[in-house]
Amino acid sequence: MSQRKIGFIGLGIMGAPMALRLAAGGHQLFVHTRSQLREEVRAAGATVCASAAEVARAADIIFTMLPDTPDVERVLFGAGGVAEGLKDSALGKTVVDMSSIAPIATKDFAARIEAAGCAWLDAPVSGGEVGAKAGTLTIMVGGQQAVFDSIRPLFELMGKNITLVGGAGAGQTCKVANQIIVALNIAAVSEALVFASKAGADPAKVREALMGGFASSRILEVHGERMIKRTFNPGFRIALHQKDLNLALQSAKALKMALPGTANAAQLMQACAAQGDEQLDHSALVRALELLANHELGGSA
Amino acid sequence: MSQRKIGFIGLGIMGAPMALRLAAGGHQLFVHTRSQLREEVRAAGATVCASAAEVARAADIIFTMLPDTPDVERVLFGAGGVAEGLKDSALGKTVVDMSSIAPIATKDFAARIEAAGCAWLDAPVSGGEVGAKAGTLTIMVGGQQAVFDSIRPLFELMGKNITLVGGAGAGQTCKVANQIIVALNIAAVSEALVFASKAGADPAKVREALMGGFASSRILEVHGERMIKRTFNPGFRIALHQKDLNLALQSAKALKMALPGTANAAQLMQACAAQGDEQLDHSALVRALELLANHELGGSA
Repeated sequence: MSQRKIGFIGLGIMGAPMALRLAAGGHQLFVHTRSQLREEVRAAGATVCASAAEVARAADIIFTMLPDTPDVERVLFGAGGVAEGLKDSALGKTVVDMSSIAPIATKDFAARIEAAGCAWLDAPVSGGEVGAKAGTLTIMVGGQQAVFDSIRPLFELMGKNITLVGGAGAGQTCKVANQIIVALNIAAVSEALVFASKAGADPAKVREALMGGFASSRILEVHGERMIKRTFNPGFRIALHQKDLNLALQSAKALKMALPGTANAAQLMQACAAQGDEQLDHSALVRALELLANHELGGSA
Repeated sequence: MSQRKIGFIGLGIMGAPMALRLAAGGHQLFVHTRSQLREEVRAAGATVCASAAEVARAADIIFTMLPDTPDVERVLFGAGGVAEGLKDSALGKTVVDMSSIAPIATKDFAARIEAAGCAWLDAPVSGGEVGAKAGTLTIMVGGQQAVFDSIRPLFELMGKNITLVGGAGAGQTCKVANQIIVALNIAAVSEALVFASKAGADPAKVREALMGGFASSRILEVHGERMIKRTFNPGFRIALHQKDLNLALQSAKALKMALPGTANAAQLMQACAAQGDEQLDHSALVRALELLANHELGGSA
């Protein structure tokens, strides 16, 4: 792949290492960030732009990696935003939003970008800071096949498991589905281990006995061990997972459907927040179940 | 291992193939069943006894594989039961209950068998009829190490993943923990796929995108596929999983602890029963979520 002019807006914990992998792939970076620019991004030769609009004027492909739906809306369509820059550019540029935001708002953003004669992909990720640095993110993409094919070599610099799930918004829908399963599987392992421990069994041996069978999951493997060893440093914070479950429940409300298990998991995370635990790893959800049992798992804590 | 005199009581869908594997291992079988004896058990050279007591008199190790807690209590301690036969025998026989029953009642049964000068193991399994026939069951054992060691060669004729989890009752506790996780992981995959489908994404592509990441589980792999392909022939019936979740919730009540996710999954299974679905595979739990969304997953149905 020849060198491309790439814009990157949002250079936080996830965005900075992702942008650095694009630069390391030999591409020219134009960046904008509201916070202090990290030295390693400047050192990678990135051109710093004064606004998102300026990034959109300079680059052919504009990536965004921002905290939440209103941030993406502001950066794309606010004053000095991407859309303003696209208006002054040749047609045919591509906007790729890699944030984790609302699927329904995303369909609207895609329609507005496409109406401006440009292409759209939503491409949220999972795999965290570790995956961003190593280039091993899972990338869930919504948009058109031809656009996906043209951007795929850039995704391959950042991730491993890269899937075009469907049209615009389908990437975000898939990410929400991912966060629903992860939260509910954490709740499942929490209830099972607290139950076993309160009934007098050793939760470490129970986890071991269950690992080969139908109860086996990445969550039992990774988060089950964190619960038993009481290692709740993030990882992925409860506060962020609360944001994602909120997205799931608001989207479900808009779609007119009920997600009772997701609602329950969201309430358990609120119970964690009540204890001041929202900055702990989401495996600390087990502490809410421990409160409900008045019993703490054994372990090395 | 030399030939052992083995009793087997309860020769149903699970018990019969398990007993046949013990016979194929070269052991002498003494059996008792309330239902019609299957021809292949008789053909394997099993001696048919008129009562559980007679089995206990003839055999040194007595296995039980029965539907529920009251069945085990009746067969062990009722008129003509195992305890009656043990009274007339030399000390040191072993009773191994492989049924899936209440952990708390199990501790009581173990104490009564041990008080009679005999040894006890509870050893419930997962893996279903397929695992029973192939000798690949997961076996979760509660009891003393020395007893476990003496019976282990027999377990190895029936299963693969064999773990001593703790003292008497710990095997049943572990099995309940297994059924909690399996039910909640099925609910997790159900909510995620129905959400994604209702939001317009292809559930098959969503499942594929999620398989490598933190959402991955045996349930996403096996039951997720069943949901998408609409293949709800059991497998493991909703009616049986309802029995197991009932065990979990009754045990939790006795232990004074709350299992809100398990309670929700049990209610969703009751909603399946309301539709006449209790004889379907437990992956049909997705149909309860479909009702709550007024939306059916795509698929080949």
